[in-house]
Amino acid sequence: MNIDESPAAPAGTGAGPRLTRKGRATRDRIVAAAANLMFERGVAGTSTDDVRIAAGVSTSQIYHYFADKCALVRAVIAHQTQAVLEAQEPLLGNLDSLEALRAWRDLVVGIQRERECQGGCPIGSMASELSEVDNLARADLVVGFARWETPIRQGLQAMRDRGELTADADPEHLALATLSALQGGLLLTQLRRETAPLEAALDAMLGHIASYATTPSPAAPA
Amino acid sequence: MNIDESPAAPAGTGAGPRLTRKGRATRDRIVAAAANLMFERGVAGTSTDDVRIAAGVSTSQIYHYFADKCALVRAVIAHQTQAVLEAQEPLLGNLDSLEALRAWRDLVVGIQRERECQGGCPIGSMASELSEVDNLARADLVVGFARWETPIRQGLQAMRDRGELTADADPEHLALATLSALQGGLLLTQLRRETAPLEAALDAMLGHIASYATTPSPAAPA
Repeated sequence: MNIDESPAAPAGTGAGPRLTRKGRATRDRIVAAAANLMFERGVAGTSTDDVRIAAGVSTSQIYHYFADKCALVRAVIAHQTQAVLEAQEPLLGNLDSLEALRAWRDLVVGIQRERECQGGCPIGSMASELSEVDNLARADLVVGFARWETPIRQGLQAMRDRGELTADADPEHLALATLSALQGGLLLTQLRRETAPLEAALDAMLGHIASYATTPSPAAPA
Repeated sequence: MNIDESPAAPAGTGAGPRLTRKGRATRDRIVAAAANLMFERGVAGTSTDDVRIAAGVSTSQIYHYFADKCALVRAVIAHQTQAVLEAQEPLLGNLDSLEALRAWRDLVVGIQRERECQGGCPIGSMASELSEVDNLARADLVVGFARWETPIRQGLQAMRDRGELTADADPEHLALATLSALQGGLLLTQLRRETAPLEAALDAMLGHIASYATTPSPAAPA
Protein backbone atom coordinates (compact mmCIF):
# COMPACT_ATOMS: atom_id res chain seq x y z
CA MET A 1 0.00 0.00 0.00
CA ASN A 2 1.14 3.51 -0.76
CA ILE A 3 1.11 4.71 2.84
CA ASP A 4 3.41 6.74 5.01
CA GLU A 5 2.74 5.12 8.35
CA SER A 6 5.12 3.29 10.64
CA PRO A 7 3.71 1.00 13.35
CA ALA A 8 6.69 1.83 15.57
CA ALA A 9 6.08 5.59 15.53
CA PRO A 10 4.68 7.42 18.56
CA ALA A 11 0.91 7.81 18.74
CA GLY A 12 -0.61 11.17 17.86
CA THR A 13 -3.98 11.20 19.58
CA GLY A 14 -4.57 7.60 20.50
CA ALA A 15 -7.11 7.35 17.66
CA GLY A 16 -6.13 4.64 15.20
CA PRO A 17 -2.64 3.23 14.62
CA ARG A 18 0.53 4.86 15.91
CA LEU A 19 1.62 7.34 13.27
CA THR A 20 4.78 9.02 12.06
CA ARG A 21 4.66 12.78 11.71
CA LYS A 22 4.08 12.31 8.00
CA GLY A 23 1.37 9.73 8.66
CA ARG A 24 -0.30 12.09 11.11
CA ALA A 25 -0.20 14.88 8.51
CA THR A 26 -1.80 12.64 5.89
CA ARG A 27 -4.51 11.52 8.29
CA ASP A 28 -5.17 15.14 9.31
CA ARG A 29 -5.42 16.16 5.65
CA ILE A 30 -8.00 13.45 5.00
CA VAL A 31 -10.05 14.47 8.05
CA ALA A 32 -9.90 18.18 7.19
CA ALA A 33 -11.00 17.49 3.60
CA ALA A 34 -13.83 15.26 4.81
CA ALA A 35 -14.90 17.86 7.38
CA ASN A 36 -15.07 20.60 4.74
CA LEU A 37 -17.06 18.46 2.33
CA MET A 38 -19.46 17.20 5.00
CA PHE A 39 -19.98 20.76 6.26
CA GLU A 40 -20.88 21.86 2.72
CA ARG A 41 -22.84 18.84 1.44
CA GLY A 42 -23.71 16.79 4.49
CA VAL A 43 -22.40 13.34 5.39
CA ALA A 44 -24.68 11.46 2.99
CA GLY A 45 -23.67 13.83 0.19
CA THR A 46 -19.96 13.11 0.69
CA SER A 47 -18.44 9.88 -0.62
CA THR A 48 -15.05 8.54 0.41
CA ASP A 49 -14.08 9.06 -3.22
CA ASP A 50 -14.95 12.78 -2.92
CA VAL A 51 -12.74 12.90 0.17
CA ARG A 52 -9.93 11.02 -1.59
CA ILE A 53 -9.89 13.54 -4.44
CA ALA A 54 -10.16 16.61 -2.17
CA ALA A 55 -7.37 15.37 0.09
CA GLY A 56 -5.19 14.27 -2.83
CA VAL A 57 -4.64 10.78 -1.46
CA SER A 58 -5.12 7.25 -2.74
CA THR A 59 -7.98 4.93 -1.87
CA SER A 60 -5.55 2.66 -0.01
CA GLN A 61 -4.36 5.60 2.08
CA ILE A 62 -7.92 6.43 3.14
CA TYR A 63 -8.61 2.82 4.09
CA HIS A 64 -5.31 2.58 5.91
CA TYR A 65 -6.37 5.30 8.32
CA PHE A 66 -10.11 4.65 8.36
CA ALA A 67 -11.68 1.19 8.24
CA ASP A 68 -14.85 2.58 6.66
CA LYS A 69 -16.85 5.75 6.15
CA CYS A 70 -18.26 5.47 9.69
CA ALA A 71 -14.75 5.65 11.14
CA LEU A 72 -14.03 8.70 9.00
CA VAL A 73 -17.26 10.33 10.16
CA ARG A 74 -16.26 9.80 13.79
CA ALA A 75 -12.89 11.43 13.11
CA VAL A 76 -14.71 14.37 11.51
CA ILE A 77 -16.93 14.72 14.58
CA ALA A 78 -13.83 14.86 16.83
CA HIS A 79 -12.21 17.37 14.45
CA GLN A 80 -15.27 19.62 14.21
CA THR A 81 -15.94 19.51 17.95
CA GLN A 82 -12.38 20.66 18.58
CA ALA A 83 -12.70 23.37 15.92
CA VAL A 84 -15.98 24.67 17.36
CA LEU A 85 -14.57 24.82 20.89
CA GLU A 86 -11.29 26.41 19.80
CA ALA A 87 -13.11 29.10 17.82
CA GLN A 88 -14.81 30.15 21.07
CA GLU A 89 -11.66 30.19 23.22
CA PRO A 90 -10.58 31.82 25.41
CA LEU A 91 -14.08 33.22 26.10
CA LEU A 92 -15.71 29.82 26.46
CA GLY A 93 -13.41 28.86 29.31
CA ASN A 94 -14.21 32.01 31.29
CA LEU A 95 -17.96 32.51 31.05
CA ASP A 96 -18.22 33.54 34.70
CA SER A 97 -19.78 37.00 34.36
CA LEU A 98 -22.65 38.56 32.45
CA GLU A 99 -20.08 40.64 30.56
CA ALA A 100 -18.24 37.48 29.50
CA LEU A 101 -21.51 35.86 28.41
CA ARG A 102 -22.31 38.94 26.31
CA ALA A 103 -18.86 38.93 24.74
CA TRP A 104 -19.30 35.24 23.91
CA ARG A 105 -22.73 35.97 22.42
CA ASP A 106 -21.13 38.65 20.21
CA LEU A 107 -18.38 36.23 19.19
CA VAL A 108 -20.73 33.47 18.03
CA VAL A 109 -22.95 35.97 16.20
CA GLY A 110 -19.83 37.43 14.58
CA ILE A 111 -18.71 33.99 13.39
CA GLN A 112 -22.06 33.54 11.63
CA ARG A 113 -21.79 37.01 10.04
CA GLU A 114 -18.34 36.16 8.71
CA ARG A 115 -19.75 32.97 7.19
CA GLU A 116 -22.70 34.88 5.76
CA CYS A 117 -24.90 32.65 7.90
CA GLN A 118 -24.06 29.60 5.81
CA GLY A 119 -23.45 26.06 7.00
CA GLY A 120 -25.04 26.23 10.43
CA CYS A 121 -23.29 24.59 13.35
CA PRO A 122 -20.70 22.04 12.16
CA ILE A 123 -21.62 19.55 14.88
CA GLY A 124 -25.30 20.52 15.18
CA SER A 125 -25.76 19.69 11.50
CA MET A 126 -24.10 16.33 12.01
CA ALA A 127 -26.30 15.67 15.05
CA SER A 128 -29.38 16.32 12.95
CA GLU A 129 -28.22 14.16 10.07
CA LEU A 130 -26.75 11.25 12.02
CA SER A 131 -28.81 10.79 15.20
CA GLU A 132 -31.18 8.28 13.62
CA VAL A 133 -28.78 6.49 11.31
CA ASP A 134 -25.42 6.12 13.11
CA ASN A 135 -25.50 5.31 16.79
CA LEU A 136 -21.72 5.50 17.27
CA ALA A 137 -21.69 8.96 15.72
CA ARG A 138 -24.60 9.94 17.94
CA ALA A 139 -22.69 8.83 21.05
CA ASP A 140 -19.63 10.84 19.95
CA LEU A 141 -21.81 13.89 19.36
CA VAL A 142 -23.35 13.57 22.83
CA VAL A 143 -19.80 13.71 24.21
CA GLY A 144 -18.93 16.63 21.94
CA PHE A 145 -21.94 18.66 23.06
CA ALA A 146 -21.14 17.85 26.70
CA ARG A 147 -17.69 19.36 26.14
CA TRP A 148 -19.45 22.51 24.92
CA GLU A 149 -21.98 22.60 27.73
CA THR A 150 -19.47 22.02 30.55
CA PRO A 151 -17.66 25.39 30.42
CA ILE A 152 -21.01 27.21 30.16
CA ARG A 153 -22.22 25.39 33.26
CA GLN A 154 -18.94 25.95 35.11
CA GLY A 155 -19.06 29.68 34.45
CA LEU A 156 -22.62 29.91 35.79
CA GLN A 157 -21.68 27.74 38.77
CA ALA A 158 -18.75 30.07 39.57
CA MET A 159 -21.10 33.06 39.43
CA ARG A 160 -23.52 31.37 41.79
CA ASP A 161 -20.73 30.24 44.14
CA ARG A 162 -19.55 33.85 44.38
CA GLY A 163 -23.09 34.97 45.16
CA GLU A 164 -23.49 36.82 41.85
CA LEU A 165 -26.48 34.63 40.92
CA THR A 166 -29.25 33.78 43.37
CA ALA A 167 -29.28 30.34 44.98
CA ASP A 168 -32.28 29.26 42.89
CA ALA A 169 -30.32 29.67 39.64
CA ASP A 170 -29.64 26.13 38.36
CA PRO A 171 -26.35 26.18 36.40
CA GLU A 172 -27.03 22.81 34.78
CA HIS A 173 -30.52 23.77 33.64
CA LEU A 174 -29.40 27.22 32.44
CA ALA A 175 -26.36 25.86 30.59
CA LEU A 176 -28.47 23.25 28.79
CA ALA A 177 -31.06 25.91 27.91
CA THR A 178 -28.33 28.22 26.63
CA LEU A 179 -26.76 25.53 24.44
CA SER A 180 -30.22 24.62 23.12
CA ALA A 181 -31.05 28.26 22.35
CA LEU A 182 -27.68 28.59 20.62
CA GLN A 183 -28.32 25.49 18.50
CA GLY A 184 -31.81 26.54 17.48
CA GLY A 185 -30.59 30.07 16.80
CA LEU A 186 -27.84 28.70 14.57
CA LEU A 187 -30.29 26.49 12.66
CA LEU A 188 -32.78 29.30 11.97
CA THR A 189 -29.89 31.66 11.18
CA GLN A 190 -28.67 29.17 8.58
CA LEU A 191 -32.17 28.77 7.21
CA ARG A 192 -32.98 32.49 7.04
CA ARG A 193 -29.46 33.69 6.16
CA GLU A 194 -29.61 36.36 8.84
CA THR A 195 -28.38 36.41 12.43
CA ALA A 196 -31.67 37.68 13.90
CA PRO A 197 -32.75 34.24 15.23
CA LEU A 198 -29.37 33.60 16.89
CA GLU A 199 -29.34 37.08 18.42
CA ALA A 200 -32.93 36.80 19.66
CA ALA A 201 -32.31 33.36 21.19
CA LEU A 202 -29.09 34.30 22.97
CA ASP A 203 -30.35 37.71 24.09
CA ALA A 204 -33.40 36.06 25.63
CA MET A 205 -31.23 33.47 27.40
CA LEU A 206 -28.78 36.07 28.66
CA GLY A 207 -31.69 38.20 29.83
CA HIS A 208 -33.04 35.17 31.65
CA ILE A 209 -29.68 34.49 33.29
CA ALA A 210 -29.39 38.19 34.22
CA SER A 211 -32.74 37.90 35.99
CA TYR A 212 -30.95 35.70 38.56
CA ALA A 213 -28.22 38.32 39.15
CA THR A 214 -28.00 39.52 42.75
CA THR A 215 -26.81 42.98 41.68
CA PRO A 216 -28.30 44.72 38.63
CA SER A 217 -25.84 45.03 35.76
CA PRO A 218 -25.74 48.42 33.97
CA ALA A 219 -25.30 46.62 30.63
CA ALA A 220 -28.12 44.14 31.24
CA PRO A 221 -31.09 44.16 28.82
CA ALA A 222 -34.04 46.23 30.01
CA MET B 1 -49.02 5.65 -18.12
CA ASN B 2 -50.72 3.82 -15.31
CA ILE B 3 -52.17 6.88 -13.63
CA ASP B 4 -55.49 7.82 -12.15
CA GLU B 5 -55.59 11.50 -12.91
CA SER B 6 -58.03 13.51 -14.99
CA PRO B 7 -57.06 16.99 -16.22
CA ALA B 8 -60.70 18.08 -16.05
CA ALA B 9 -61.07 17.27 -12.38
CA PRO B 10 -61.26 20.02 -9.72
CA ALA B 11 -58.02 21.10 -8.10
CA GLY B 12 -57.20 19.81 -4.64
CA THR B 13 -54.68 22.25 -3.22
CA GLY B 14 -53.53 24.22 -6.23
CA ALA B 15 -50.21 22.33 -6.12
CA GLY B 16 -49.55 20.49 -9.36
CA PRO B 17 -52.16 19.37 -11.88
CA ARG B 18 -55.90 19.33 -11.20
CA LEU B 19 -56.64 15.96 -9.67
CA THR B 20 -59.54 13.59 -9.33
CA ARG B 21 -60.31 12.34 -5.84
CA LYS B 22 -58.45 9.15 -6.73
CA GLY B 23 -55.56 11.12 -8.13
CA ARG B 24 -55.43 13.23 -5.01
CA ALA B 25 -55.39 10.09 -2.85
CA THR B 26 -52.52 8.61 -4.86
CA ARG B 27 -50.54 11.83 -4.65
CA ASP B 28 -51.17 12.05 -0.90
CA ARG B 29 -50.04 8.44 -0.45
CA ILE B 30 -46.78 9.20 -2.26
CA VAL B 31 -46.15 12.32 -0.17
CA ALA B 32 -46.97 10.54 3.11
CA ALA B 33 -44.64 7.65 2.23
CA ALA B 34 -41.87 10.07 1.25
CA ALA B 35 -42.39 12.10 4.45
CA ASN B 36 -42.08 8.98 6.61
CA LEU B 37 -38.94 7.78 4.87
CA MET B 38 -37.29 11.20 4.89
CA PHE B 39 -38.13 11.62 8.58
CA GLU B 40 -36.46 8.28 9.33
CA ARG B 41 -33.50 8.37 6.93
CA GLY B 42 -33.13 11.95 5.78
CA VAL B 43 -33.74 13.31 2.30
CA ALA B 44 -30.41 12.14 0.88
CA GLY B 45 -31.04 8.66 2.29
CA THR B 46 -34.40 8.37 0.52
CA SER B 47 -34.55 7.55 -3.18
CA THR B 48 -37.62 7.97 -5.34
CA ASP B 49 -37.47 4.20 -5.76
CA ASP B 50 -37.73 3.77 -1.96
CA VAL B 51 -40.77 6.05 -2.06
CA ARG B 52 -42.31 4.16 -4.99
CA ILE B 53 -42.04 0.86 -3.12
CA ALA B 54 -43.31 2.27 0.20
CA ALA B 55 -46.28 3.96 -1.49
CA GLY B 56 -47.06 0.95 -3.67
CA VAL B 57 -47.11 2.94 -6.89
CA SER B 58 -45.34 2.76 -10.23
CA THR B 59 -42.43 4.92 -11.34
CA SER B 60 -44.65 6.57 -13.93
CA GLN B 61 -47.16 7.49 -11.21
CA ILE B 62 -44.48 9.20 -9.13
CA TYR B 63 -43.24 11.16 -12.13
CA HIS B 64 -46.75 12.07 -13.11
CA TYR B 65 -47.24 13.92 -9.84
CA PHE B 66 -43.68 15.08 -9.26
CA ALA B 67 -41.32 16.26 -11.99
CA ASP B 68 -38.28 15.24 -9.97
CA LYS B 69 -37.11 14.50 -6.43
CA CYS B 70 -36.89 18.24 -5.68
CA ALA B 71 -40.60 18.63 -6.39
CA LEU B 72 -41.34 15.68 -4.12
CA VAL B 73 -39.17 17.20 -1.37
CA ARG B 74 -41.12 20.44 -1.60
CA ALA B 75 -44.39 18.54 -1.27
CA VAL B 76 -42.98 16.77 1.79
CA ILE B 77 -42.02 20.13 3.33
CA ALA B 78 -45.59 21.38 2.85
CA HIS B 79 -46.96 18.12 4.27
CA GLN B 80 -44.67 18.11 7.32
CA THR B 81 -45.22 21.81 8.03
CA GLN B 82 -48.96 21.18 8.08
CA ALA B 83 -48.52 18.10 10.27
CA VAL B 84 -46.31 19.97 12.77
CA LEU B 85 -48.77 22.86 13.03
CA GLU B 86 -51.82 20.60 13.29
CA ALA B 87 -50.20 18.54 16.05
CA GLN B 88 -49.98 21.75 18.13
CA GLU B 89 -53.53 22.92 17.50
CA PRO B 90 -55.65 24.29 19.03
CA LEU B 91 -53.04 25.49 21.57
CA LEU B 92 -50.79 27.10 18.96
CA GLY B 93 -53.56 29.40 17.79
CA ASN B 94 -54.27 30.66 21.32
CA LEU B 95 -50.91 31.29 22.96
CA ASP B 96 -52.11 34.50 24.59
CA SER B 97 -51.46 33.72 28.26
CA LEU B 98 -48.62 32.28 30.33
CA GLU B 99 -50.90 29.34 31.14
CA ALA B 100 -51.43 28.66 27.42
CA LEU B 101 -47.69 28.90 26.78
CA ARG B 102 -47.07 26.38 29.56
CA ALA B 103 -49.72 24.02 28.19
CA TRP B 104 -48.10 24.29 24.74
CA ARG B 105 -44.68 23.58 26.28
CA ASP B 106 -46.13 20.44 27.91
CA LEU B 107 -47.68 19.39 24.60
CA VAL B 108 -44.46 19.61 22.59
CA VAL B 109 -42.49 17.85 25.33
CA GLY B 110 -45.19 15.17 25.44
CA ILE B 111 -44.95 14.63 21.67
CA GLN B 112 -41.23 13.97 22.05
CA ARG B 113 -41.83 11.54 24.92
CA GLU B 114 -44.35 9.63 22.80
CA ARG B 115 -41.76 9.36 20.04
CA GLU B 116 -39.10 8.30 22.54
CA CYS B 117 -37.20 11.44 21.51
CA GLN B 118 -36.53 10.04 18.06
CA GLY B 119 -36.54 11.87 14.75
CA GLY B 120 -36.24 15.45 15.98
CA CYS B 121 -38.35 18.14 14.37
CA PRO B 122 -39.68 16.99 10.97
CA ILE B 123 -39.08 20.41 9.39
CA GLY B 124 -36.07 21.39 11.52
CA SER B 125 -34.24 18.29 10.30
CA MET B 126 -35.08 19.18 6.71
CA ALA B 127 -33.86 22.75 7.30
CA SER B 128 -30.55 21.42 8.55
CA GLU B 129 -30.13 18.97 5.69
CA LEU B 130 -31.35 21.15 2.84
CA SER B 131 -30.38 24.77 3.59
CA GLU B 132 -27.06 24.54 1.74
CA VAL B 133 -28.06 22.23 -1.08
CA ASP B 134 -31.60 23.12 -2.21
CA ASN B 135 -32.51 26.78 -2.34
CA LEU B 136 -36.15 26.19 -3.29
CA ALA B 137 -36.56 23.87 -0.33
CA ARG B 138 -34.86 26.44 1.88
CA ALA B 139 -37.34 29.12 0.74
CA ASP B 140 -40.28 26.80 1.47
CA LEU B 141 -38.89 26.04 4.91
CA VAL B 142 -38.51 29.77 5.66
CA VAL B 143 -42.21 30.11 4.90
CA GLY B 144 -43.02 27.02 6.97
CA PHE B 145 -41.17 28.34 10.01
CA ALA B 146 -42.85 31.73 9.60
CA ARG B 147 -46.20 29.94 9.81
CA TRP B 148 -45.03 28.46 13.12
CA GLU B 149 -43.64 31.73 14.46
CA THR B 150 -46.68 33.85 13.58
CA PRO B 151 -49.15 32.40 16.11
CA ILE B 152 -46.49 32.58 18.86
CA ARG B 153 -45.91 36.25 18.04
CA GLN B 154 -49.63 36.98 17.80
CA GLY B 155 -50.27 35.45 21.23
CA LEU B 156 -47.53 37.57 22.80
CA GLN B 157 -48.77 40.64 20.96
CA ALA B 158 -52.29 40.06 22.32
CA MET B 159 -50.88 39.77 25.85
CA ARG B 160 -48.99 43.03 25.43
CA ASP B 161 -51.99 44.78 23.85
CA ARG B 162 -54.07 43.80 26.88
CA GLY B 163 -51.39 45.16 29.22
CA GLU B 164 -50.43 41.71 30.52
CA LEU B 165 -46.86 42.16 29.28
CA THR B 166 -44.89 45.37 29.78
CA ALA B 167 -44.49 47.74 26.84
CA ASP B 168 -40.81 46.84 26.43
CA ALA B 169 -41.67 43.20 25.67
CA ASP B 170 -40.97 42.72 21.94
CA PRO B 171 -43.35 40.04 20.62
CA GLU B 172 -41.35 39.55 17.42
CA HIS B 173 -38.06 39.14 19.26
CA LEU B 174 -39.57 36.87 21.91
CA ALA B 175 -41.39 34.69 19.36
CA LEU B 176 -38.23 34.22 17.32
CA ALA B 177 -36.28 33.39 20.47
CA THR B 178 -38.95 30.91 21.56
CA LEU B 179 -38.98 29.14 18.19
CA SER B 180 -35.17 29.03 18.23
CA ALA B 181 -35.11 27.61 21.76
CA LEU B 182 -37.69 25.04 20.69
CA GLN B 183 -35.64 24.00 17.66
CA GLY B 184 -32.40 23.69 19.61
CA GLY B 185 -34.19 21.86 22.38
CA LEU B 186 -35.64 19.41 19.86
CA LEU B 187 -32.23 18.81 18.28
CA LEU B 188 -30.48 18.10 21.57
CA THR B 189 -33.46 16.02 22.72
CA GLN B 190 -33.11 13.91 19.57
CA LEU B 191 -29.36 13.63 20.10
CA ARG B 192 -29.53 12.73 23.79
CA ARG B 193 -32.75 10.70 23.67
CA GLU B 194 -34.18 12.58 26.63
CA THR B 195 -36.46 15.59 26.87
CA ALA B 196 -34.24 17.49 29.35
CA PRO B 197 -32.82 19.89 26.70
CA LEU B 198 -36.26 20.73 25.31
CA GLU B 199 -37.66 21.27 28.79
CA ALA B 200 -34.72 23.42 29.88
CA ALA B 201 -34.90 25.55 26.73
CA LEU B 202 -38.64 26.14 26.86
CA ASP B 203 -38.72 26.66 30.64
CA ALA B 204 -36.01 29.30 30.32
CA MET B 205 -37.89 31.04 27.48
CA LEU B 206 -41.21 30.93 29.35
CA GLY B 207 -39.44 32.24 32.45
CA HIS B 208 -38.04 35.06 30.36
CA ILE B 209 -41.46 35.89 28.92
CA ALA B 210 -42.96 35.74 32.42
CA SER B 211 -40.41 38.34 33.52
CA TYR B 212 -42.30 40.81 31.32
CA ALA B 213 -45.65 40.01 32.99
CA THR B 214 -47.30 42.99 34.61
CA THR B 215 -48.91 40.82 37.29
CA PRO B 216 -47.04 37.90 38.89
CA SER B 217 -48.46 34.53 37.91
CA PRO B 218 -48.88 32.00 40.74
CA ALA B 219 -47.79 29.19 38.40
CA ALA B 220 -44.73 31.06 37.11
CA PRO B 221 -41.30 29.49 37.68
CA ALA B 222 -39.46 30.82 40.74
